Amino acid sequence: MNVLLCGDFGADERLRWQRALAVALPEAKWLDEAGARARPDAVQAAVVANPPPGSLQGLPQLRLIQSLWAGVDRLLDDSTLPAGVPVARMVDPAMNAAMAETALWAVLSLHRGFFEYARRQREAQWLAHKQRRANEVNVLVLGQGQMGRATAARLLQQGYTVMGWKRDGAPLTPLLGRAHIVINLLPLTPDTRGLLDAAFFAALPPKAAIVNLARGAHVIDADLLAALDSGRLRHAVLDVFRAEPLPGEHPFWLHPRVTVLPHAAAITDPRSAATVAAANLRAALAGQAVAHLVDRQRGY
Amino acid sequence: MNVLLCGDFGADERLRWQRALAVALPEAKWLDEAGARARPDAVQAAVVANPPPGSLQGLPQLRLIQSLWAGVDRLLDDSTLPAGVPVARMVDPAMNAAMAETALWAVLSLHRGFFEYARRQREAQWLAHKQRRANEVNVLVLGQGQMGRATAARLLQQGYTVMGWKRDGAPLTPLLGRAHIVINLLPLTPDTRGLLDAAFFAALPPKAAIVNLARGAHVIDADLLAALDSGRLRHAVLDVFRAEPLPGEHPFWLHPRVTVLPHAAAITDPRSAATVAAANLRAALAGQAVAHLVDRQRGY
Repeated sequence: MNVLLCGDFGADERLRWQRALAVALPEAKWLDEAGARARPDAVQAAVVANPPPGSLQGLPQLRLIQSLWAGVDRLLDDSTLPAGVPVARMVDPAMNAAMAETALWAVLSLHRGFFEYARRQREAQWLAHKQRRANEVNVLVLGQGQMGRATAARLLQQGYTVMGWKRDGAPLTPLLGRAHIVINLLPLTPDTRGLLDAAFFAALPPKAAIVNLARGAHVIDADLLAALDSGRLRHAVLDVFRAEPLPGEHPFWLHPRVTVLPHAAAITDPRSAATVAAANLRAALAGQAVAHLVDRQRGY
Repeated sequence: MNVLLCGDFGADERLRWQRALAVALPEAKWLDEAGARARPDAVQAAVVANPPPGSLQGLPQLRLIQSLWAGVDRLLDDSTLPAGVPVARMVDPAMNAAMAETALWAVLSLHRGFFEYARRQREAQWLAHKQRRANEVNVLVLGQGQMGRATAARLLQQGYTVMGWKRDGAPLTPLLGRAHIVINLLPLTPDTRGLLDAAFFAALPPKAAIVNLARGAHVIDADLLAALDSGRLRHAVLDVFRAEPLPGEHPFWLHPRVTVLPHAAAITDPRSAATVAAANLRAALAGQAVAHLVDRQRGY
């Protein structure tokens, strides 16, 4: 089996993936982009992590494009992506767990006021605030895919009052009106792009907080800043941004009510993800069913 | 039933307790310190929260001293505390849950590096670090009382590798050698005072972290600062201090590797604690068994 491995990872990260994939799929020969261009007829599958646009065209034997990342919005944006080849997202249990951990950390921080305590520490201010019980905090989870479900389950286990929403489900506005904390775990599609805008923030109760762990383009940055500055929103935890790395001059960096994370809420774990990818590659080449196929029309 | 209510709470806090206690124990008449001094023979029980030293002496009919706080070290330090009267600690399920939440938040923050991300945000530095799985993080919980057990259970539920220790249990040093994170939930007694000293920190693996949610006097501050400054300890989360409020000039406030909380890890919840106190007061006056009695010899 000849597999193209290409993406935007650094040298160390590429090495970790190569090692994990070699263990999970010892029968494969791995090609880089130059190798694939030299022998395009040989490439039977591709394992990719935001590959450079164009790198998957002109490979006539390609049977599967397996993404190492869960989000495939950038991959699908490549207009040269071969139309007839199935694309699979990564669904890695270790990454789902990492996402649920980050979401839980953000909820605990917001519920118990630990971001405020960090601000007060910088001013040497000793002041405790009131303590609410977990079941008095309403958390709305947007998105009911693998990560949304793992996150909702983790929060329920901790006693929070959890509401879920998905794009084709019940109307959003009534749920927003009851949400103290909103966690965004939606896929980025034409339908969800820019969903977190001024109208969205205005539908929340005063002093609500948002946690964006999905994609930067879900948020209208100027509307978010206005909602924070007016005091309508209490805090925003942001892991994803319209431009990444977040440009040094962006107001999010130094905003006292914004927590910036460097797209680190859930990093795919090569040890478990390589096993998932290997199973899919074997299935594809044997003509069997492939897991976590992307619906290109739907966008995820 | 005539009950003395006294302690170090502010006016608002006192009012919340009075309301909750009036609901839980409608048959009681509540006296303040002046009322008790005016009619010492009338006082049958006392509900206290770090009462001023001497305030419980000379009350010949006193049948129970019920603390509203879980820690009774300051109460027992009062040499005028009447010797023959039983003392009960507060064991409030809502407070145990709050303590477990704070411990879990601290562990998630340390495990996933969120304190480092906060430091990097202030420098507009975009840099993700490696992601470990929860079961790769060894957490040592010191203390196996109500709060230690609630915390250990919460961490186990999240997949952490949890070790427990109590004062009269297995030797501590071998456990310290494997601990990435130590959470202190011990009672303060002559045996545990100053336990977290230079030798304790030296027994930890490099880059370990400590979380002190018990009492400030468990820690030798100078030894902790030295261990942080040498890089042996990665971070300390401190909710309790030798002097509280923490004095404005104390080096903990601005130390980049110290998170200061204003003794807010777990605040007794009047709604549930008043019910616990009421049950104990009724039992004491009916000559029945009282729960959560303090062993004055042991110190908790």
